[in-house]
Amino acid sequence: MAPTVHVAAESSEQATKVVGLAAFDASGQLSPLAINRRRTGDDDVAIKVLYCGICHSDLHTIKNEWKDTIYPCVPGHEIAGAVTEVGASVTRFKAGDRVGVGCMVNSCQSCDRCAGGFENLCPGIVWTYNSVDLDGTVTYGGYSSNVVVHERFVVRFPDAMPLDQGAPLLCAGITVYSPMRRHGLDAPGKHVGVAGLGGLGHVAVKLARAFGARVTVVSSSPAKRREALDRLGADAFVLSSDADEMKAAAGTMDGIINTVSANIPMTPLLGLLKPNGKMVLVGMPEKPLEIPPFDLILENKALVGSSIGGMRETEEMKELAARHGVAADVEVIGADYVNEAMERLARADVRYRFVIDIGNTLRDNAE
Amino acid sequence: MAPTVHVAAESSEQATKVVGLAAFDASGQLSPLAINRRRTGDDDVAIKVLYCGICHSDLHTIKNEWKDTIYPCVPGHEIAGAVTEVGASVTRFKAGDRVGVGCMVNSCQSCDRCAGGFENLCPGIVWTYNSVDLDGTVTYGGYSSNVVVHERFVVRFPDAMPLDQGAPLLCAGITVYSPMRRHGLDAPGKHVGVAGLGGLGHVAVKLARAFGARVTVVSSSPAKRREALDRLGADAFVLSSDADEMKAAAGTMDGIINTVSANIPMTPLLGLLKPNGKMVLVGMPEKPLEIPPFDLILENKALVGSSIGGMRETEEMKELAARHGVAADVEVIGADYVNEAMERLARADVRYRFVIDIGNTLRDNAE
Repeated sequence: MAPTVHVAAESSEQATKVVGLAAFDASGQLSPLAINRRRTGDDDVAIKVLYCGICHSDLHTIKNEWKDTIYPCVPGHEIAGAVTEVGASVTRFKAGDRVGVGCMVNSCQSCDRCAGGFENLCPGIVWTYNSVDLDGTVTYGGYSSNVVVHERFVVRFPDAMPLDQGAPLLCAGITVYSPMRRHGLDAPGKHVGVAGLGGLGHVAVKLARAFGARVTVVSSSPAKRREALDRLGADAFVLSSDADEMKAAAGTMDGIINTVSANIPMTPLLGLLKPNGKMVLVGMPEKPLEIPPFDLILENKALVGSSIGGMRETEEMKELAARHGVAADVEVIGADYVNEAMERLARADVRYRFVIDIGNTLRDNAE
Repeated sequence: MAPTVHVAAESSEQATKVVGLAAFDASGQLSPLAINRRRTGDDDVAIKVLYCGICHSDLHTIKNEWKDTIYPCVPGHEIAGAVTEVGASVTRFKAGDRVGVGCMVNSCQSCDRCAGGFENLCPGIVWTYNSVDLDGTVTYGGYSSNVVVHERFVVRFPDAMPLDQGAPLLCAGITVYSPMRRHGLDAPGKHVGVAGLGGLGHVAVKLARAFGARVTVVSSSPAKRREALDRLGADAFVLSSDADEMKAAAGTMDGIINTVSANIPMTPLLGLLKPNGKMVLVGMPEKPLEIPPFDLILENKALVGSSIGGMRETEEMKELAARHGVAADVEVIGADYVNEAMERLARADVRYRFVIDIGNTLRDNAE
């Protein structure tokens, strides 16, 4: 990276200064920023970040496309690294452990939703970045040399799982795993469609196969056919622009994991569902979806949203992935490539997830 | 009615001529038409129609608002009457029985959906009107003196249920009952919202109360507050145009039965749902709904369609209604008032269902 390091305005005597990659405005250009990390509290785990995946949400956020960005913004919620220190009350982790952090770093930990394992639905959720933390500071994500996170939101990686390929499971993986579980798409005999073959989609194909389901990829890109069938092991491929292929697949799917974050017509996709079928939205298009009521009503179909998953589900997902050797297909990049990577991501030019090699390429000392 | 009786072009030597009220074009004006009814087949039940409810679908269809109307069109799928004759194989009914017919008059009766009790989802479904029957003729509905229907699609009315108030249960009732059952809104402790207080909505309030659920009516009409609370026994009322009332009710509902057939903003309604809450569409607006993805994704909410229900569910609904004394609030009209009733229905000027007194006001002999 360029040697200039900005210094964030906030500071705390108790904090440690570390380096992050921050966007300062809606241009979305990232450059180094010295940020504060709190000292390791009793329930905290301090982690040296080694890898961080680049999620499409990061791109939306640094460009303020969801109109809620707090600048400077240090993105990153697919974090993998090594524990450097644990708080006095922490029992599940010790220094040296290979761990990760996903989209959440805290929640109220006392409501029914937290108790039920759905911290992702807690009204007091603290997102890993661009969120107000319990102490009133703004959270900074994993495009940084270190993070300090409550142990509840830290996940241990299985020994055999490479950290760079495992990191994306903590957002992309759980985001597609949770709705497949909750909506009964997690079994042999089920036919799962995966719309869009990007960061989320390619993991959805792998996890659906791990569940034993039949998997069909639906994509507007003819080039994805061989990718889907040969590289990812999908059972079938449907080109969404081919009316004959769409017609042949009509009414055959129990559910569709729709990872497309562009505004595409919903009617053809909904037509692929069986009666009582569910299309799960996990991609987040900017504009409202247009849904003709007939498309849902006539055959009892559903359009359901799904937001990541809880920590208990994340553990389950990790175990399933480990048993079946599932991880993300990644392109590991250096920290100085991050802006170019964002441009490539915007035009879907990545197979299938960029992961920043933070450990080797981001200097971890802001002084 | 005016004495002029048109005669439908189709005819059959085996058919009986009866009188129906038909629309001949998209003006939607109804006037008498002599139509054929097939002779009573082995599995058929012949019914003298005594009452027929006016469903909002009838209005949409006679005006060709769904672009699929086959003229002449005799609407009506909330039929109540008396059995006049049964076919040789019919065992469940005999002449004189008080029976009704809802939205379907046949299906393939051999597919998995039919076997599972969901004839409403059968690809071979024959709708009660404006549908092509198994013999290739177009079906005519209950705005007529007689109907002949396969016994599977005939429902016996409980002795204590008045036919005029019971007829609307066969469409409005089952349409709101089925999704409450299938989506787990059918129990004490559940909080059910009912959006729109018309023909479907008022029955939804009554059936949700019969389930023991807490019921809140959501309406844009201040005049409906007292109706909902005092007349129908809803637990609460929320005026959708009142920001404070909507805010106070935000995040409280397990599900909403949305009966509104106009294109209203979905965001405020979806905001009333708890996480994992479901908004069920049973009204059919003409234009596509606009759904901001955030509204569904952030708290795992769902927008689900629901199309009437199967015959097994219809029997269950009828039993529940009978146990709790639930029936529709109706305004009984003569056949010569039907066009005026349609105009009033279009401006929602009815509490809550028009029912045509076919037996006393429509001449049953077309000769």
